[in-house]
Amino acid sequence: MTRFAFTIEYDGRPYMGWQRQAHGPSVQQHVEEALGRIVGAAPVVHCAGRTDAGVHALAMRAHADLETRIAPFRLMEAMNAHLRPEPIAILACAAVADDWHARFSCLGRSYEYRILNRRAPLTFERGLVWRVPQALDARAMHAAAQQLVGRHDFTTFRSAHCQAESPVRTLDRLDVVQDGARITVHAAARSFLHHQVRSMVGCLGLVGTGHWSIADMKAALDARDRNALGHNAPPDGLYFVGATYAQDDAPDALPRLP
Amino acid sequence: MTRFAFTIEYDGRPYMGWQRQAHGPSVQQHVEEALGRIVGAAPVVHCAGRTDAGVHALAMRAHADLETRIAPFRLMEAMNAHLRPEPIAILACAAVADDWHARFSCLGRSYEYRILNRRAPLTFERGLVWRVPQALDARAMHAAAQQLVGRHDFTTFRSAHCQAESPVRTLDRLDVVQDGARITVHAAARSFLHHQVRSMVGCLGLVGTGHWSIADMKAALDARDRNALGHNAPPDGLYFVGATYAQDDAPDALPRLP
Repeated sequence: MTRFAFTIEYDGRPYMGWQRQAHGPSVQQHVEEALGRIVGAAPVVHCAGRTDAGVHALAMRAHADLETRIAPFRLMEAMNAHLRPEPIAILACAAVADDWHARFSCLGRSYEYRILNRRAPLTFERGLVWRVPQALDARAMHAAAQQLVGRHDFTTFRSAHCQAESPVRTLDRLDVVQDGARITVHAAARSFLHHQVRSMVGCLGLVGTGHWSIADMKAALDARDRNALGHNAPPDGLYFVGATYAQDDAPDALPRLP
Repeated sequence: MTRFAFTIEYDGRPYMGWQRQAHGPSVQQHVEEALGRIVGAAPVVHCAGRTDAGVHALAMRAHADLETRIAPFRLMEAMNAHLRPEPIAILACAAVADDWHARFSCLGRSYEYRILNRRAPLTFERGLVWRVPQALDARAMHAAAQQLVGRHDFTTFRSAHCQAESPVRTLDRLDVVQDGARITVHAAARSFLHHQVRSMVGCLGLVGTGHWSIADMKAALDARDRNALGHNAPPDGLYFVGATYAQDDAPDALPRLP
């Protein structure tokens, strides 16, 4: 038995999310089925962070235990062939230690949330960005975001379906960066609550349009109450961009994002 | 009669190109039909550069003469409403002088060609980039590109269907820029021959993989013979990014690209 680690890119638009669902297609199902056709068994694939319906990944990290002597490069090529025509690509594959776990060994996750701030409808990027037609003040959004950085009870920004035991998380980074009409929110933490990034970004949108002040953001956090949530941003703009590990000793096979 | 100028973004994947065709949908047809539903006539829309099937535009410039007193902003909003669900967006609209012509007043056109240099299949960007699985040497590509800059007879890089009277063009810029796996070719000239950018990029690809030397690129140019063309890059990666005019006196309404 060999443990293989994967770096996976996917367009979340056609899927119910990462996790297998009875009522629709998932990324996990397609990756497991591709592996099953190669090794002839029904392997389970574990990932660093289960994304919701419509959420994308630029470099999801995952692993599976397989009874095979296939070389990692050939496994990657075979998976990509079997995944066709799904918009899921295996970017890297490596054999790793038996105790390397995509989810439990993960020391940090990062997401980015992409906003296109313009009045005109979307063309290339339908389902891939959140279009906000009202003018956004990205500086105010960044200032408000700093209220959320650090160790807090994030109950306000947590889905009713969140299964985490504690609502306390340490947010390492929440930066709002503007490049013309494009506004990107960069978020990093050891782990996130369910819907946390989308809930934080939704409230940042209220700050950006002037509906909320920086003090309103602080008050929402302090309320520790889901009813204090201003707005949940749509899944369209959310991308899982990377995960970090202590023993990431295969940088070529498992490249970090540029 | 008022002449209105438009800045138009479109995803070229569903279209036979800008120009109206008997055998399939075109961008021109959809824009003219949207205008026709607003002003009740059948206006003709002229553009700065007619793009081929599958080629995209980030900021095509165009104009039409309309018998209407509608304000430019309202016209833009109405066009975007009527263009739905086509992936065509009017980014800006302004009333301009009667002698401003999107094509004949244009002093310069710029294109960019997007390459994704990786082995893994495409997910988000199918039809939007040229995926090249072999490793490309972007520095060699840039060096070879400089052989083409300047005033030359570009017969080698011209489609058999090109209708231009002369094959001589002055290429102002052909820069190859790398950012990780992304390689972008920036091209600018007063005007281009039919297929010129795709033909130049196709040959740059041969340089990038080591099949052609810089001298081979020079020899291809000097041959002035379409048979000396190495390769035509697919339309997928090509974007019309902007046009310049002497009297571009409406910078807010007709924004330049960032």
